[in-house]
Amino acid sequence: MGEQITYSISEAIESDVSDLELIYIEKHIFDIIRKLEGSEFLRAELFSYAARINALYMIMRAGSGHLGSSFSSLDIVSWLYLNVIKPSDRYYSSKGHDSPGLYAVHTALGILDFSNIHKLRRFGGLPGHPDIQTPGAFTNTGSLGMGVSKAKGFFIADKLKKRDNGKIYVLTGDGELQEGQFWESLNTISARNDDRLVIIIDHNKVQSDKLVSKVADLGDLEAKFRAFGLDVFRCDGHDLVAFDEMLNTNNGKPKVIIADTIKGKGISFMEHTSMESEFYKYHSGAPNKEEYSLAIKELLLQITRLSNQLNFQQFEVSKVEIEPLTISKTFKKLIPAYSDAIIELAQTYPDIVALDADLVLDTGLIPFKEKFPERFIECGIAEQDMVSQAGTIALGGGLPIVHSFACFLTTRPLEQIYNVSTERSKVIYVGSLAGVLPGGPGHSHQAIHDITYMSSMPKMTSIEPISENQAKEALEWAVKLNSNSTYIRLVSVPIEQCNEIDNLVLQEVGIGAVLTEGSDFTILTCGPILSVQLVKASEILKSKGINIKVIVTPWLNEINLKWLEEVIMDSKGLLVCENHSSKYGFSDFILSKIAETGICKVPNIFKLGVDGIPAYGRPEEVLSYHKLDALSLAEFVLEKVEKN
Amino acid sequence: MGEQITYSISEAIESDVSDLELIYIEKHIFDIIRKLEGSEFLRAELFSYAARINALYMIMRAGSGHLGSSFSSLDIVSWLYLNVIKPSDRYYSSKGHDSPGLYAVHTALGILDFSNIHKLRRFGGLPGHPDIQTPGAFTNTGSLGMGVSKAKGFFIADKLKKRDNGKIYVLTGDGELQEGQFWESLNTISARNDDRLVIIIDHNKVQSDKLVSKVADLGDLEAKFRAFGLDVFRCDGHDLVAFDEMLNTNNGKPKVIIADTIKGKGISFMEHTSMESEFYKYHSGAPNKEEYSLAIKELLLQITRLSNQLNFQQFEVSKVEIEPLTISKTFKKLIPAYSDAIIELAQTYPDIVALDADLVLDTGLIPFKEKFPERFIECGIAEQDMVSQAGTIALGGGLPIVHSFACFLTTRPLEQIYNVSTERSKVIYVGSLAGVLPGGPGHSHQAIHDITYMSSMPKMTSIEPISENQAKEALEWAVKLNSNSTYIRLVSVPIEQCNEIDNLVLQEVGIGAVLTEGSDFTILTCGPILSVQLVKASEILKSKGINIKVIVTPWLNEINLKWLEEVIMDSKGLLVCENHSSKYGFSDFILSKIAETGICKVPNIFKLGVDGIPAYGRPEEVLSYHKLDALSLAEFVLEKVEKN
Repeated sequence: MGEQITYSISEAIESDVSDLELIYIEKHIFDIIRKLEGSEFLRAELFSYAARINALYMIMRAGSGHLGSSFSSLDIVSWLYLNVIKPSDRYYSSKGHDSPGLYAVHTALGILDFSNIHKLRRFGGLPGHPDIQTPGAFTNTGSLGMGVSKAKGFFIADKLKKRDNGKIYVLTGDGELQEGQFWESLNTISARNDDRLVIIIDHNKVQSDKLVSKVADLGDLEAKFRAFGLDVFRCDGHDLVAFDEMLNTNNGKPKVIIADTIKGKGISFMEHTSMESEFYKYHSGAPNKEEYSLAIKELLLQITRLSNQLNFQQFEVSKVEIEPLTISKTFKKLIPAYSDAIIELAQTYPDIVALDADLVLDTGLIPFKEKFPERFIECGIAEQDMVSQAGTIALGGGLPIVHSFACFLTTRPLEQIYNVSTERSKVIYVGSLAGVLPGGPGHSHQAIHDITYMSSMPKMTSIEPISENQAKEALEWAVKLNSNSTYIRLVSVPIEQCNEIDNLVLQEVGIGAVLTEGSDFTILTCGPILSVQLVKASEILKSKGINIKVIVTPWLNEINLKWLEEVIMDSKGLLVCENHSSKYGFSDFILSKIAETGICKVPNIFKLGVDGIPAYGRPEEVLSYHKLDALSLAEFVLEKVEKN
Repeated sequence: MGEQITYSISEAIESDVSDLELIYIEKHIFDIIRKLEGSEFLRAELFSYAARINALYMIMRAGSGHLGSSFSSLDIVSWLYLNVIKPSDRYYSSKGHDSPGLYAVHTALGILDFSNIHKLRRFGGLPGHPDIQTPGAFTNTGSLGMGVSKAKGFFIADKLKKRDNGKIYVLTGDGELQEGQFWESLNTISARNDDRLVIIIDHNKVQSDKLVSKVADLGDLEAKFRAFGLDVFRCDGHDLVAFDEMLNTNNGKPKVIIADTIKGKGISFMEHTSMESEFYKYHSGAPNKEEYSLAIKELLLQITRLSNQLNFQQFEVSKVEIEPLTISKTFKKLIPAYSDAIIELAQTYPDIVALDADLVLDTGLIPFKEKFPERFIECGIAEQDMVSQAGTIALGGGLPIVHSFACFLTTRPLEQIYNVSTERSKVIYVGSLAGVLPGGPGHSHQAIHDITYMSSMPKMTSIEPISENQAKEALEWAVKLNSNSTYIRLVSVPIEQCNEIDNLVLQEVGIGAVLTEGSDFTILTCGPILSVQLVKASEILKSKGINIKVIVTPWLNEINLKWLEEVIMDSKGLLVCENHSSKYGFSDFILSKIAETGICKVPNIFKLGVDGIPAYGRPEEVLSYHKLDALSLAEFVLEKVEKN
């Protein structure tokens, strides 16, 4: 990080920011804002605009982060923290991805050490979704729909511990209302009738991909909440006077405030009301530098306006030069390859129906949706509903292909997947964002148990494609050759180019490939992430005179024993490792097979995976923490080889 | 089965049924009823009372089955099948446990071969919950809340396949409305606006344990449905004239009919309106013989009344003598032992809070609830909500112990369990009804993946107690000694007395016990069910001169390597088996450990579990099908020993 320079706001507006410069607001400015004389509503508004600058700063530095909902909720969050929340109260966001906004408030108020604004999505810094190890976080969120349930649990604990009765403010998304658990959690609300509960709906109209109304219109939301026994309020979520009035009305019942907000509020071209395409652009990624530059100007103009109204002329802006994010080499991407494959197959197989749970941008389904609108089902954030629908589509003669992030797809609807499997139906499940990378979003989004859950399912074959070729072939195999169900585990992060894996094709069931030859040690793995690291490790080790054999298989619950014997029989030592937990994981599957069949007389056998709670941070930080980067893997082998 | 005798209805009313006699109605009587002249409503009523006799017959023969909801829904189901459903239509029950009633209708109409009425919950007969391999079943249900989602999938398939647009009638429970998926599935209902969907709520007021209103009052149900965009109707579900009128009203919208029914309808003392205690007695078990005798008399009187009204004098009743259910030996039961243990610990640990999901009768929590009403939380059929509440109870300083059937507890809220585990909280999960037994309810209730799901979780130790002692000690260990979370896997079926296991106490973490000594072959297992079978197998084998060593461990994801080495090192052959799937299961955990540590030079290693979709039937039928009964296990060993 370069030296920090401070400007007056007018200088900042006039000067251009270079490609490597970012702007933020120091904590002492927030301290001053809080003490300004004048309207408390204006103060909160100024505070929230300054916080927007910092939230945007964090996202730009991280290269990703949820901008749209941070901005839609920042007025509310600022107001709550400046004027409402008492020490015995709790506030948390059920959706959790609006954390850059929350962190901006927490750092401004000293709840979080201010230096954290430079560490969003970095190891040892701030995770992409809340974690209770971060000061100010009351519970882990990021898996949707859990917020109200969690509040009920806190109330029970408070009663048990005879604690002072603090209020609980739960912010939820509007897309989040598609999750069944949200409604499930309301069932006992009226019976328990705890008026300390305040649910605030950040009704910004846009879910991950597009307008909520285009996915599953919420209908008469007020009537729904009223029917579930809540005291219902509704206001413009950027009108703090109205919002505060509703907060202060107490009818002795648990309360919901539907706050009509604007996604991306504060930057004209990011506001959802100015959306020109079907898809909203600023849900989770970082804007480009041109957009950043324009955005900063707009925010600074708002700040100027508000500062003037509050007679605060000394508003200072800090500018800092950051290290460029290394965008190195050529990358391979599995999602676009998969995206092409499903289109191609759908042309020949008219029974293919693709189902999606509000992640069409991430699961590569836009081309499919455009080409086969009749065979594309947008289920919304409703994984259980999606899988049960897929099951009967299959019973009715269709071939459903179900998409979501692996972390959600293999957990939220697990009972539904089992139910479908007991119907002996053929359903293809495609879980993207699989494995410990990206590490930025944190544990709620890191699928490190999906292999276990899906591979243990009756009548299910699990595959993790290693190359673009294999991503295509895996789907072909699932559609054309497998009469049962298939789980396709897709890594979403770009994969470094690596000659050894780039052109790998899918062999027959249970057979993998040898990536590097070597007689000193053998390593078997699955998936592209560790394959690349292992090829690199083999190069490091070669320079030390050690030659390792690296083997990779796309088949996660099938193994051809003859092949396995052939490739491992001469090993002097064997490591099985995985981009996944090794507790009841892929390694156990392989090692058990080795024990069971007695084919391996290898004296030294080891396993390694993402054990415990996955670390968050940049890819290299996360792999290194779990000792799954090339260097750690090379060291591991070195130690084992030296021992013998 | 003894010889069948036919009586006139008046003879049947006058004669007593002996303890081994049961009464049913032959198919030809139903055929006659359908052709009687007179009111179609009276005909349907008579049909439904005759079907009640057969549903009761099936439940009595099986020794279990869901009586209350079969009876509450039988008028509706009879009407639909006699007068409404066309060949292109589909009917299914989302709750699924009312299947004895449905089977009674299906056998009466020839949709199912009539002989099936003698085979409820028997291997090769009719499963306790619907399975599509049974004629007349459109989808597998029994896991709650999936019905409407499934209908949406059928509609998609019909459109895809350009099929005739049949209607879909989905019956749901009222307790079932507590499941989030139900509401999740309604989100897209109004957008898709398919008026072929008819949801019928069997609003019988009582869920598994008690009155729905005492668990989570449904509030203004009509308003809820209306807010979700459904066309809402409400009527007395036993008033077929009113019901039919509502079926025939079409406003071009998907429809819900709230049918106010009486649980146990038709037998005065089984009707919920005559409930005297908090708990409803006739949800799932079979009545005793006295109750049966009284019930039959009441049903026959109703039939007499209706037959007379329809001028049908030749109504015949068949009586048959059945084999007595073998109630042999002394049994041990883990649930009562657990029940005592939680009370005892709760006296010393004031932070213990017990959470239940509408299975208080089955999870042994009634004594706890009575003793510590303030620390008992009835969550209703809302497992996701329950687990998320448990998580924040733990964060707030409580020690939550979460209860449900293993099949539901480890699947429906799996993402919530992971979320709690990432909070590093201490929560105790107690999954009862674990394993493949009882086999009667069928696959929806057979937990054969719970070990995998829970043992792979970060910061979770899994234990399966083998004896009453161990059930108590497992909970003690979880409460007092484990600083992380614990999963306690409880077998609910009575365990045959077996000296080798009855007094087993809990050793330290990772250490099990040797049940029988022998040098010819070694078998390692977990849990009481297979332990008993293996001790029996050892006796069978002893008589053939083969001595096997049987080892059992309660620790499902911890193993003391020194102990393991000690007990298996001299084995000539080793089998690891489990009352659970061996695909990514306990066996893989053990075998992987053996491979990894190289402690075992055993030449022949095998594994065995409940693989594929679990079979249904009586315990002996199910174990035998999966080759996990004593005889099959002995044969397995014999074959392996002879080979060497």
